[in-house]
Amino acid sequence: MGSIFGKNIKISVFGESHGPAVGVVIDGFPSGFDIDFEIISKEMGRRKPTTGVYSTGRNEADEVEILSGINDGKTTGTPVAAIIRNTDCKSRDYDELEYLLRPGHADLSGLIRYKGYNDKRGSGHFSGRLTAPVVFAGAIAAQILNVYDIIIGSHIDSIYDAHDLRFDGTQITKDQLLMLRSMDIPVNDRSCREVYLQIIEGARNNSDSVGGIVETAIIGIPAGIGSPIFDNVEAKLSSILFSIPAVKGVEFGDGFGITRLYGSQANDSFYVKDGNIYTKTNHNGGINGGITNGMPVVFRTAVKPTSSIAKEQDTVDIKEGKNAKLKVKGRHDACIVPRAVPVIDAAAAVAVLDILMEHYGLEGFNKGMKYNGK
Amino acid sequence: MGSIFGKNIKISVFGESHGPAVGVVIDGFPSGFDIDFEIISKEMGRRKPTTGVYSTGRNEADEVEILSGINDGKTTGTPVAAIIRNTDCKSRDYDELEYLLRPGHADLSGLIRYKGYNDKRGSGHFSGRLTAPVVFAGAIAAQILNVYDIIIGSHIDSIYDAHDLRFDGTQITKDQLLMLRSMDIPVNDRSCREVYLQIIEGARNNSDSVGGIVETAIIGIPAGIGSPIFDNVEAKLSSILFSIPAVKGVEFGDGFGITRLYGSQANDSFYVKDGNIYTKTNHNGGINGGITNGMPVVFRTAVKPTSSIAKEQDTVDIKEGKNAKLKVKGRHDACIVPRAVPVIDAAAAVAVLDILMEHYGLEGFNKGMKYNGK
Amino acid sequence: MGSIFGKNIKISVFGESHGPAVGVVIDGFPSGFDIDFEIISKEMGRRKPTTGVYSTGRNEADEVEILSGINDGKTTGTPVAAIIRNTDCKSRDYDELEYLLRPGHADLSGLIRYKGYNDKRGSGHFSGRLTAPVVFAGAIAAQILNVYDIIIGSHIDSIYDAHDLRFDGTQITKDQLLMLRSMDIPVNDRSCREVYLQIIEGARNNSDSVGGIVETAIIGIPAGIGSPIFDNVEAKLSSILFSIPAVKGVEFGDGFGITRLYGSQANDSFYVKDGNIYTKTNHNGGINGGITNGMPVVFRTAVKPTSSIAKEQDTVDIKEGKNAKLKVKGRHDACIVPRAVPVIDAAAAVAVLDILMEHYGLEGFNKGMKYNGK
Amino acid sequence: MGSIFGKNIKISVFGESHGPAVGVVIDGFPSGFDIDFEIISKEMGRRKPTTGVYSTGRNEADEVEILSGINDGKTTGTPVAAIIRNTDCKSRDYDELEYLLRPGHADLSGLIRYKGYNDKRGSGHFSGRLTAPVVFAGAIAAQILNVYDIIIGSHIDSIYDAHDLRFDGTQITKDQLLMLRSMDIPVNDRSCREVYLQIIEGARNNSDSVGGIVETAIIGIPAGIGSPIFDNVEAKLSSILFSIPAVKGVEFGDGFGITRLYGSQANDSFYVKDGNIYTKTNHNGGINGGITNGMPVVFRTAVKPTSSIAKEQDTVDIKEGKNAKLKVKGRHDACIVPRAVPVIDAAAAVAVLDILMEHYGLEGFNKGMKYNGK
Repeated sequence: MGSIFGKNIKISVFGESHGPAVGVVIDGFPSGFDIDFEIISKEMGRRKPTTGVYSTGRNEADEVEILSGINDGKTTGTPVAAIIRNTDCKSRDYDELEYLLRPGHADLSGLIRYKGYNDKRGSGHFSGRLTAPVVFAGAIAAQILNVYDIIIGSHIDSIYDAHDLRFDGTQITKDQLLMLRSMDIPVNDRSCREVYLQIIEGARNNSDSVGGIVETAIIGIPAGIGSPIFDNVEAKLSSILFSIPAVKGVEFGDGFGITRLYGSQANDSFYVKDGNIYTKTNHNGGINGGITNGMPVVFRTAVKPTSSIAKEQDTVDIKEGKNAKLKVKGRHDACIVPRAVPVIDAAAAVAVLDILMEHYGLEGFNKGMKYNGK
Repeated sequence: MGSIFGKNIKISVFGESHGPAVGVVIDGFPSGFDIDFEIISKEMGRRKPTTGVYSTGRNEADEVEILSGINDGKTTGTPVAAIIRNTDCKSRDYDELEYLLRPGHADLSGLIRYKGYNDKRGSGHFSGRLTAPVVFAGAIAAQILNVYDIIIGSHIDSIYDAHDLRFDGTQITKDQLLMLRSMDIPVNDRSCREVYLQIIEGARNNSDSVGGIVETAIIGIPAGIGSPIFDNVEAKLSSILFSIPAVKGVEFGDGFGITRLYGSQANDSFYVKDGNIYTKTNHNGGINGGITNGMPVVFRTAVKPTSSIAKEQDTVDIKEGKNAKLKVKGRHDACIVPRAVPVIDAAAAVAVLDILMEHYGLEGFNKGMKYNGK
Repeated sequence: MGSIFGKNIKISVFGESHGPAVGVVIDGFPSGFDIDFEIISKEMGRRKPTTGVYSTGRNEADEVEILSGINDGKTTGTPVAAIIRNTDCKSRDYDELEYLLRPGHADLSGLIRYKGYNDKRGSGHFSGRLTAPVVFAGAIAAQILNVYDIIIGSHIDSIYDAHDLRFDGTQITKDQLLMLRSMDIPVNDRSCREVYLQIIEGARNNSDSVGGIVETAIIGIPAGIGSPIFDNVEAKLSSILFSIPAVKGVEFGDGFGITRLYGSQANDSFYVKDGNIYTKTNHNGGINGGITNGMPVVFRTAVKPTSSIAKEQDTVDIKEGKNAKLKVKGRHDACIVPRAVPVIDAAAAVAVLDILMEHYGLEGFNKGMKYNGK
Repeated sequence: MGSIFGKNIKISVFGESHGPAVGVVIDGFPSGFDIDFEIISKEMGRRKPTTGVYSTGRNEADEVEILSGINDGKTTGTPVAAIIRNTDCKSRDYDELEYLLRPGHADLSGLIRYKGYNDKRGSGHFSGRLTAPVVFAGAIAAQILNVYDIIIGSHIDSIYDAHDLRFDGTQITKDQLLMLRSMDIPVNDRSCREVYLQIIEGARNNSDSVGGIVETAIIGIPAGIGSPIFDNVEAKLSSILFSIPAVKGVEFGDGFGITRLYGSQANDSFYVKDGNIYTKTNHNGGINGGITNGMPVVFRTAVKPTSSIAKEQDTVDIKEGKNAKLKVKGRHDACIVPRAVPVIDAAAAVAVLDILMEHYGLEGFNKGMKYNGK
């Protein structure tokens, strides 16, 4: 009731931050796909906290153990289960919080939702650590998509009040997206990196935190994918994106900005070139009527500032039933946006593969040969 | 595959703009609820085009015929089916468009999706007319919610570059929301009405169109509702909101704006009053970790400018395979935002009732008495 | 919550026996399929009560009105909605039953389920009339399957204690199944027809009723279809078969009889012929591990005797809270098995198409040409 | 696509017989339930092969490791993940089978389904070992049901041609069901045990195997549970029962036998006693119109003879593409029916809890106290 996503590719996420393990079961992958484990490691690494300026010092080994669904390096077609053990859990850092609700966190809502029985250590099931299994799932989904030349990549559109160059929605290249996936602070305008890091450093020095916006592009996705009304591409993507902790907004194409255009500006005019139809602009983010139109799918995701801050905040002590003060100790990212990027890429990959399976089916995706005695 | 939403309350929408009828099947309503048909009429009326300045001249009678699931004015508990006949279909207005792709519309994406076999008259299944059944479903869902003192209401936050006063997310009243539901151009600052109408009039006079943002509040929803990870309240709401034609962005609380706050500002501090816990601010829109925290749920929906405009646009003639010019004739709203408001209210009501059923079950919602020989 | 079936092909059934209409919304058909309306009529006719010896005298016109999803005689790919008006509702026949629970019916279970608010006229939503929309949906699904040479047909395996010849599960032909679909009392051994009719006639004359078993075969379904564990072919088929009123048992291959074989008998040995692999016997009904093995899929469905009988029965008057006697008046089939046959065929067609869509996707099924200016 | 069951209680099963582990993720349990781990062990033990006469010698330790969702011995309300390592995998016993299709198994259907990429060691994902996680899930579900006095139990109705006494569907007691759950060969007539064991022993000595029928009763389930049409109790139960390997038939109440009764016999007459309504007989197995009527729910499940037998069988060598002979070596149960009993009990518990959640919701099931500062 909460932890399963998808229709054709179903992912079921489980775990608590300070329990034995977090993990995922992925049901529906076509069989016979060669898994590149290095890509998985690389993607897990992008999400992993580093000792870098913007990130927590928690040493998350993030060693994935695959329990099923992959044999001889290939998908078997049966559910892929993978777990990541929780090893470095200094729960003492959290213990003193037990009765002090952390502002911005799910402490109160979770308490009521679970009648006080949820595992509260390190945010438990609400922990950002639950995104690690999503990255694992997405790293495989992305590899399958890549076979069909569908590439997903993101840059950090803004941190606090500083902005990167946006994508030009009519011309985004595979090289550009792959480059972004290789950067620790992925930006289109490289000068932004330093600015972003300074803002994050400033927030950290002030015992505070900052958020930002991630802009993502999906190229190579065929036209005609998705369905009108409820199973449209925007609904599907937004649904999985809002499942990422700290996400508070999702917009496609010009998004909220499109409301400040006239219809004659917002409409993407069509033109024909070499027998193919394109749009001159891409204010609609590659989607019309919930269905892809063949242009890059572009969306932005708003990630709020890290809720855990060392600064003193007002709160309530639920044991005493009184107002209280709180400083959240422990290791916290002053900005989680860079770590949200691979999660967003992964979530998008899962959602897109799910939608594509609807159109092409297991057979369409199955590149396996007839059994040949190996 | 497109037209069914929900888990506990399932709505299945069907129809084409110029086919015999549009309609909806709603599965999962508790039994024994008295339906106030006037409220349904009123909500259908809010969505209906009027002869007002901002709206199309199409005379949509929107007479709902209920085929099942309501008996003696009460829900029976079995599926409610309702249809709305299409009576005033001047398809001639659309015929000449057959080979000219309308920019901003689903003409190209739909064509490829359905291999050319979808009903293209008046946008067919992509028509805004498909929102009428959603309003019907929402008008019943809202009545059931009202019994539990859950009230939903919206104002038009902006039209083009003009802005209304936003909700104060910590104090929104039932009276305020009911008042908004009674206004043709629902606004918090009444002086906005005239400004909005002038902008719309200006766009119309220029053969153009404008969009805007709708801000919605849900009050009375208990704390602890929703689930972490995928079935969270934001995912559920965004999923149905993006199903409304022309919606390009959804944000909760401060949404994208929260990225321009520090963590110490974005975190909503808790305080206790008369034994209850509240937040001092509501930057998170009443939702933490995907679960309600007892504060009003606040979100905003971006509605793009009407795609159909009389102004000449560049496009492609798919019969000739050549670039061409197009002026979309016929009756079109210069701004659909006012008509989107009741659709958003209705969609939210369906989603919220669906989520609540998870928590309270049929029994929790069923106020029916034991059979008493009537 | 009751009335929606399927994953790729979703059918949503609604209506009450004595309400305005019964109907169905079918979501997920591929686009561009030519509908043969005569086949639909024929299938609806098979389900329709006749003046024949075994059936009710109710004149169900069963005129289907298609509201959406079919244009120019072809599926559009958007939801197909169809309704059947209830015209000949002599509810007086049922009124006197209001407080007398009819044994074998859902009167008590429905009363409690819906707190007394369900429409009780003519069994309401529990009426066998709700199978008419299923037959409609199945008649289209079967046509799509036929394009891929998948044929479904059934014979009446038994009525009361009389038995027909069973299918030989290794050799069932298209002609045989099509022949069965054209018979009013479909049997493999034609001499059974008379025996069956005599048993039914005898039951009717005794104010009683009889049931029977329907055996169904699906030929042409490719090997490798379905999934292990929960989404297996047997689970899917049984799930929709048990949705047909009066069905109390479902078995595949030898079913319960397989428990009276040794493993060496029950195992279907493989052999190779012309490069293809077959089984010598078909005790497993064409399914191993929940997945088709290329042999005919064979299953049997137990249909209980009609619950409504004119014979006096013991029951309870719920108004008085006392034991009482009841004779169910009105028009009732002395045996509904012949009318259950087309319903079973239809249900199987819907389920099989749903499963196949998983494998071949919309694209695999979509025979639509590229848009060609028509 | 195969491995997820349920709507309110969702179980996601994964693993291969000879991979690292099998396991399950269970989503939707209410929070705060005390888990009795001894009951889990006992149920796992019932399914575990023993050195008994009827069972394989494989030493399945079946040590369950719980990875999430249970804290301090109580459900947290978040997904419960549990894995069982595969330790005693003598895959050599299976290796020689690689090219020889085992009759009765999913070797051919699985090969085609997964294009040859599924893990074929020890039947892989098709292995009966996958039922261990289901038993784990069911052992928790059953404990939650027990709090509400809902008890499930089964006896072995038949082995080959020997029959136990059937349940009297109108009077089944809690003690009777609990007693059955404590027996290695659960039977109503204790003299059957010896007969069954002799039949199994005889089959084993003949390098052969036998199957049987399991009869299950659910008592304490309230009237009015379930929904008409597709989500009825019979559809739900049959759907999960057919997911158990080797199950070929499911019937409710008198099942197929009801077709050999007249309507006047098959209808269960109502009577009133102390203000409650009961039926005099229970031919319909406690279900009318797909909804419980308050009487015990009774069903039977046909389990085919073990497919793996040491006797020589005809088959095909897929490497050579030629007919061949096969003796399946290794450790195999001569009869899996006794081990199927706890799996059926568990599957029924999961399905019934899932259905009940629909009616009572999380709140109805949540016995958790208000947070008490503990």
